[in-house]
Amino acid sequence: MTAQAQIAKEIAALCETARWCAAQRWVPATSGNFSVRGSAAERIFISPSGLDKGAMKPADLLEIDASGKVVSGKGKPSAETDLHRVIYRIHPEAGAILHVHTVWNTLLSERFVKQGELHLEGYELLKALDGVGTHEYREHVRVLANTQDYEELAARLDEALRLRPRAHGVLLSGHGFYTWGKAVADARRHLEALEFLFEVEGRKLFGN
Amino acid sequence: MTAQAQIAKEIAALCETARWCAAQRWVPATSGNFSVRGSAAERIFISPSGLDKGAMKPADLLEIDASGKVVSGKGKPSAETDLHRVIYRIHPEAGAILHVHTVWNTLLSERFVKQGELHLEGYELLKALDGVGTHEYREHVRVLANTQDYEELAARLDEALRLRPRAHGVLLSGHGFYTWGKAVADARRHLEALEFLFEVEGRKLFGN
Amino acid sequence: MTAQAQIAKEIAALCETARWCAAQRWVPATSGNFSVRGSAAERIFISPSGLDKGAMKPADLLEIDASGKVVSGKGKPSAETDLHRVIYRIHPEAGAILHVHTVWNTLLSERFVKQGELHLEGYELLKALDGVGTHEYREHVRVLANTQDYEELAARLDEALRLRPRAHGVLLSGHGFYTWGKAVADARRHLEALEFLFEVEGRKLFGN
Amino acid sequence: MTAQAQIAKEIAALCETARWCAAQRWVPATSGNFSVRGSAAERIFISPSGLDKGAMKPADLLEIDASGKVVSGKGKPSAETDLHRVIYRIHPEAGAILHVHTVWNTLLSERFVKQGELHLEGYELLKALDGVGTHEYREHVRVLANTQDYEELAARLDEALRLRPRAHGVLLSGHGFYTWGKAVADARRHLEALEFLFEVEGRKLFGN
Repeated sequence: MTAQAQIAKEIAALCETARWCAAQRWVPATSGNFSVRGSAAERIFISPSGLDKGAMKPADLLEIDASGKVVSGKGKPSAETDLHRVIYRIHPEAGAILHVHTVWNTLLSERFVKQGELHLEGYELLKALDGVGTHEYREHVRVLANTQDYEELAARLDEALRLRPRAHGVLLSGHGFYTWGKAVADARRHLEALEFLFEVEGRKLFGN
Repeated sequence: MTAQAQIAKEIAALCETARWCAAQRWVPATSGNFSVRGSAAERIFISPSGLDKGAMKPADLLEIDASGKVVSGKGKPSAETDLHRVIYRIHPEAGAILHVHTVWNTLLSERFVKQGELHLEGYELLKALDGVGTHEYREHVRVLANTQDYEELAARLDEALRLRPRAHGVLLSGHGFYTWGKAVADARRHLEALEFLFEVEGRKLFGN
Repeated sequence: MTAQAQIAKEIAALCETARWCAAQRWVPATSGNFSVRGSAAERIFISPSGLDKGAMKPADLLEIDASGKVVSGKGKPSAETDLHRVIYRIHPEAGAILHVHTVWNTLLSERFVKQGELHLEGYELLKALDGVGTHEYREHVRVLANTQDYEELAARLDEALRLRPRAHGVLLSGHGFYTWGKAVADARRHLEALEFLFEVEGRKLFGN
Repeated sequence: MTAQAQIAKEIAALCETARWCAAQRWVPATSGNFSVRGSAAERIFISPSGLDKGAMKPADLLEIDASGKVVSGKGKPSAETDLHRVIYRIHPEAGAILHVHTVWNTLLSERFVKQGELHLEGYELLKALDGVGTHEYREHVRVLANTQDYEELAARLDEALRLRPRAHGVLLSGHGFYTWGKAVADARRHLEALEFLFEVEGRKLFGN
């Protein structure tokens, strides 16, 4: 398959994943953003700002170059494009990034932002994460304080990714969850596993 | 686009939103009501009373004039038509109003009716609300005691809207949530964001 | 419309309601039962035992006569047919009966079986119930202890319906909720309203 | 119906059940596995490892013989194939096995692994389980500690099934729930009933 055909396939998978996230109500009120890495150096295809991600089609994605310029597509790129870049830079193996807001990731991110991290451990489902082969594994999920200063936020994200190089996602307090993977299918598998575990942990904490 | 075509478009969007609300079980037992502003002065198109809002079609809507008379359409207008009027009067920029009953807005409205208000603050999702550009924003949601005296209820709503002119919605105790926006898409974005945050706050308070 | 056409219409509505209940997961593991009153004296059309109610079609329903004999249709009538009969006898205005198992009605029925009753009060949604015109209304929901002795269970139900003639439904402890209405649409409206309120009350009780 | 036609029918039902489980989010991140017994001695048809079970089609299933060799189909059999074998061996009446990860079965399995068992009692829905004719029945659900040593896990499962021969399912701590039945329809009915009851018990315990 040519590189172009491969990207077209990934973009279709990204749109399908966005539709699925919307059906779960994981991208409320036009929130969330999704991207795949382009074939040219430092190019990414990312969802535009303000679009209802559940209705996203391949033609909606914007191709952004290294300088942040929109190379193709209509609309404003997500303000969070720089955060996607940080992840692609620190994780050269990542080919897709998903960012969603769920009730449970919102609750947990607020609960753990002081500690700066939450742990997921002992679950068989952790084996769905790349590189993990046992339930006796501790996934370290960094929790960053949110800010509207995106330069600062990018710096916090960079720091978190370097601190926990094996992590599969990062929480922003009151600002959703970022996860990535080699391809869209991997990112989606990570998202499903981690959001499931956020709900399990959340019900333990916010119950009695 | 002509004014008529524009309203037809908005009415179609309103019906789609009502169907979506029904699928989320946000308009149980024929509750809820939806309206858009008409083109003539003080005319509104509103859902009829007693209709299952999930099955609402454009032809079901009633056009009501300033005196409350049904200008076109079959059926009884919602008893809450006057509440819609109050909102359109105090908020000339509003072109659509959505009213739904959800489990979380019911729980929170009962919890906060004594205080008269609940606050939502610190969430990135607040940026989905018109005029809000940061998570460091406090949304004031007035909570009104319910009454079957609609003249009294309209007066309470009028007072609440004047007290908090920047608010994007109002809760009625045990009687759902009203939100509005420039067009149906804005009202829906406000609804999605605020109901999401009601669930987050509700799970903190009710351990559920 | 002839009596036969009217019943055919109601049976179609009953099947649609059963499918909707299944989609909400309110009739798990072939539980639940649904009926409409027939045109001949003391005839009822009821769902058969053991059928996945979500797949119920008009041809699946059994017509039962006053002596309990299957007049038409294949299969075994629900063991709960006699409970439907009790309701039709005490409530001559009822034309349809719905019985479902939900998580919330199960939790509340166990919690309140000692008291024998639970109250729902102050909710605008109570106005969805026939004969109720204000939120300042107390719906008395009797809660009966369950038993496999159906003669005894029928006697308990008869007593409960006589004790609370204005009630719109009855809970059986750990055995679901019965509600009824003039036609399927009314029974469904009652079901939606009451199950919504069971969830609201349940989250208050089983949270903190 | 020939044995081959019967198995084809069961495989179709298995795929439909897998799709339904995926729609409930009971097989997140490619977790879960499903099998039916083959016609030849000790042959089973099982879902392959790593497949999104919600998209499973008959052609995806692997036929495995007594020695664990893949007789037909592409892909790697689930690592849990041996667990399915243990169940088919101890329960000769079982024709289908379902294994899912749900939030509630995960919470309860962790809570009860020390005790080694959890009880479900008093629910009418227990009558959905083969051999159970009253709500006054105690279903004993063994809870096994998880391990990546599948020989050890198979031994623990074998012990649990012998200890509670009337049980209809077994929990693995943090590793989902196994249930079985004479045919796919029975296994599914058991799954629906038991997962419903796990949620009821879970909400009592976790206030959620």
